[in-house]
Amino acid sequence: MGRVGISVVLRRSNNNKNMTQEELFKKLISHCKEYGFIFPSSEIYDGLAAVYDYGQLGVELKNNIKRYWWDAMTKLNDNIVGIDAAIFMHPRTWEASGHVGAFNDPLIDNRDSKKRYRADVLIEEWIAKQEEKIVKEVEKAAKRFGESFSEEQFRATNGRVLELQQRIDETTERMAKSLTDNDLDGVKQIIVDLEIVCPISGTRNWTDVRQFNLMFETKMGASAEAASTIYLRPETAQGIFVNFLNVQKSGRMKIPFGIAQIGKAFRNEIVARQFIFRMKEFEQMEMQFFIAPGTELEWYEHWKQFRMRWHQALGFGEQHYKFHNHAKLAHYANAACDIEYEFPFGFKEVEGIHSRTDFDLGNHQKFSGKKIQYFDTEKGESYVPFVVETSIGVDRMFLQVMSASLKEEKLENGEERTVLAIPAPIAPVKVAVLPLVKKDGLPEMARAIINDLKFEHNCQYDEKDSIGKRYRRQDAIGTPFCITIDHQSLEDKTVTIRHRDSMTQERVSIDAVAGIIGEAVNMKSLLQSIIK
Amino acid sequence: MGRVGISVVLRRSNNNKNMTQEELFKKLISHCKEYGFIFPSSEIYDGLAAVYDYGQLGVELKNNIKRYWWDAMTKLNDNIVGIDAAIFMHPRTWEASGHVGAFNDPLIDNRDSKKRYRADVLIEEWIAKQEEKIVKEVEKAAKRFGESFSEEQFRATNGRVLELQQRIDETTERMAKSLTDNDLDGVKQIIVDLEIVCPISGTRNWTDVRQFNLMFETKMGASAEAASTIYLRPETAQGIFVNFLNVQKSGRMKIPFGIAQIGKAFRNEIVARQFIFRMKEFEQMEMQFFIAPGTELEWYEHWKQFRMRWHQALGFGEQHYKFHNHAKLAHYANAACDIEYEFPFGFKEVEGIHSRTDFDLGNHQKFSGKKIQYFDTEKGESYVPFVVETSIGVDRMFLQVMSASLKEEKLENGEERTVLAIPAPIAPVKVAVLPLVKKDGLPEMARAIINDLKFEHNCQYDEKDSIGKRYRRQDAIGTPFCITIDHQSLEDKTVTIRHRDSMTQERVSIDAVAGIIGEAVNMKSLLQSIIK
Repeated sequence: MGRVGISVVLRRSNNNKNMTQEELFKKLISHCKEYGFIFPSSEIYDGLAAVYDYGQLGVELKNNIKRYWWDAMTKLNDNIVGIDAAIFMHPRTWEASGHVGAFNDPLIDNRDSKKRYRADVLIEEWIAKQEEKIVKEVEKAAKRFGESFSEEQFRATNGRVLELQQRIDETTERMAKSLTDNDLDGVKQIIVDLEIVCPISGTRNWTDVRQFNLMFETKMGASAEAASTIYLRPETAQGIFVNFLNVQKSGRMKIPFGIAQIGKAFRNEIVARQFIFRMKEFEQMEMQFFIAPGTELEWYEHWKQFRMRWHQALGFGEQHYKFHNHAKLAHYANAACDIEYEFPFGFKEVEGIHSRTDFDLGNHQKFSGKKIQYFDTEKGESYVPFVVETSIGVDRMFLQVMSASLKEEKLENGEERTVLAIPAPIAPVKVAVLPLVKKDGLPEMARAIINDLKFEHNCQYDEKDSIGKRYRRQDAIGTPFCITIDHQSLEDKTVTIRHRDSMTQERVSIDAVAGIIGEAVNMKSLLQSIIK
Repeated sequence: MGRVGISVVLRRSNNNKNMTQEELFKKLISHCKEYGFIFPSSEIYDGLAAVYDYGQLGVELKNNIKRYWWDAMTKLNDNIVGIDAAIFMHPRTWEASGHVGAFNDPLIDNRDSKKRYRADVLIEEWIAKQEEKIVKEVEKAAKRFGESFSEEQFRATNGRVLELQQRIDETTERMAKSLTDNDLDGVKQIIVDLEIVCPISGTRNWTDVRQFNLMFETKMGASAEAASTIYLRPETAQGIFVNFLNVQKSGRMKIPFGIAQIGKAFRNEIVARQFIFRMKEFEQMEMQFFIAPGTELEWYEHWKQFRMRWHQALGFGEQHYKFHNHAKLAHYANAACDIEYEFPFGFKEVEGIHSRTDFDLGNHQKFSGKKIQYFDTEKGESYVPFVVETSIGVDRMFLQVMSASLKEEKLENGEERTVLAIPAPIAPVKVAVLPLVKKDGLPEMARAIINDLKFEHNCQYDEKDSIGKRYRRQDAIGTPFCITIDHQSLEDKTVTIRHRDSMTQERVSIDAVAGIIGEAVNMKSLLQSIIK
């Protein structure tokens, strides 16, 4: 039962009947709904845009992913502890963090279609179109020149390509500068100069660009005049920073140490899209590692490697991950990168690792008027600790697991099967117990096996339809083991264990079942492979 | 290692140095902060009223409580599955549920102090005062009459007591009627008639009573005109109801079946109090059980008993629990009760069990225009299922565990210790490994033991201070086992295991350690004791 064959699935390169990436992604979304992984929120009321609910299998997978992260962070590292801060925080928190002032999207409306867009996204889409044009030029040339064609040489010498590339580079730089300078007229001017039109109305009748804060607001208190505006946290990290002193003191923590947290965050995204990849309500798993100033780049490198190993321990294939270093750093960071995973819609960020310096604790010190420092007994001095953070989206991780696991396979006998090859330790259902027929005491024997396993593992009982159909149902929801009870079981107390990925079956004693399953679904081996 | 002696702790009846209940509760709160269980939210900004953060030990205990509930509901019952619906829901949900129209508190202001009160709470406090007066009368009489005194007879015959009792009964009835009829002038008139004064200003200069909706609102969307008002869910149950069809169909569920959920809910409580007992942001664990009409009282009884066994399996003592049947039922219920636990501040609700009829699904059917029915193959007919729900607050359960576990003990040698006798399967730290001295290879041996245990258990390493001090620290955070490494350990590979509650120690082989701890902290035995 190796992990061979689990990876690279919802991609065109596979034997996926030549589906396009878009078709594959649609199939993933409908599979999630059909089998109870993810439902659109409030679907009976026709849904709520960019909000989703996790169904009966989704919640189990999500909880297993969270446990995998939590155990890897807090159990493998004896200098990391967790917390669970509230979603509501004092509003000054978000002034100190910079979110009240600067957590904005530049928005623009088309007056004819009345549609609203993120101005930077309009420009990015224009850039993407130019890049497509370059790719087409390259493809045309490759056809024309045949084997003697060198793409590199073509790109470096072809006038049309050089011109397109130059416009792309100029635009990218211009937009970055305008956004950094908060020059909204400058952003608008780019849209005007590029002659970008509204995809709906086709016109260039644009309003000015305005900043729109992404935080959700609400009023706490009993009446309009007495109530104060508070925010739904747009990130979980600040709950860690404001508790730094409490945890450090009550936990007698010594630098270097980390605080981990899993929790909901909320952003009023205008362009929410790609299913659960970008939602208005989402869940984060963040860890802030507190260190002595000057050691941050060493720790930054440490956490990059640790987090990449955490992803790759799932066995989806190293070729689907890459680091993407931020060329342009946020004002609070002195090093930052993303871990990107190759989704059906391309390489995209699932996790960020950031060296945040003393920006956060320093600002909370300033805004709260409380001394937020650490006395380093080895150095004999006090300082505001530096921070390296690792920040991953639970929902994106969920999408990574589903994307990597969903496979359409053609079998030797010509049949097809849909299988979700989720690594056993995080699979939602661990074992299905199936009596071959609904009589002769086989159901009772199946129930007895479940009664033995159910305290430790999520089990399913299924007696409906042919055994082949039942195997297919379990394949489709990612159950790593099916146990079949037949008449021989009554005689010699053996059962058949069928393995999801290889579809091989073996006959074993009932007494051996708990051990075989326990070994395979245990989180321990997954955790061990991270640190070795 | 039985559970003897774990219970009855933060109560005056114990050997708790005659602290008052109020002092005991204060001690509990400060213990929670000192040891990293619970911190006031945003404390560096002087806090946010009625919002709390869970610290490094609190989060572990809270997660273990949630797991105990989740496993008991979804693993012990093969017809219960989980979901995890979003906090954001379509606003029509809350019209259908009745929350937009009727989830209100009656508020009243005192014009002199500018203080705001819940009108019903002012009246309840008046009633509590009358009850105190009766108690005093009874106590006085008992002193006067000595051994011949019968409280029952005194209450039945004493004119002053009878008069007080009559006013209490009349007021209770009058308030219930006014609130049911939404007669706010009637509520105000009670306050006027009873001559209730503001505790701050001492005056009776009251405003009218107004209804105040407890739901937090926020705007979703990009601008004031395009945005729609949505609510932070005031309960998790509706996320289950709107997903009934999705779960039933995708999970091929047959009635009777249940859907379980754990998640945050939010209420803009004006009178939030008693630490984490009533907060503005809190967490619920709810299960909705869908059944055929006519079977609800049978299932109601079943879930009452199951849930009570779940509580009592923790071993805090059956005498501290009772059912409180709702004399007056909500309009949607045909049977309802609470499970009450005896907190330091008295018996209070931790869980509700409600027979909700078809109120919820029926209303969603009406408001959504979608058919929400179940076709019962056995009966050969379709119906809107009835619902029995169990609803428990995670935070109240946390407070129950802390209240029941915190003990001040006087030891035989005259010393005192503070011990948190949390049942081992839900204790935040399972084992502390302590080298007797910081040299001679003992720390390395301790680390090796932790490296063996850490994948399965939350461990702590501690080498600072005397062994006695280290035991006390672990007692105070509820660690069930301390393993001490001494020089003999180097020779014969044995260690000392110390048990938290009995403080007994035994010498065992290192090879036996994982087994002893694994057995004691395993959730399985806790779960088994519920169903046997």
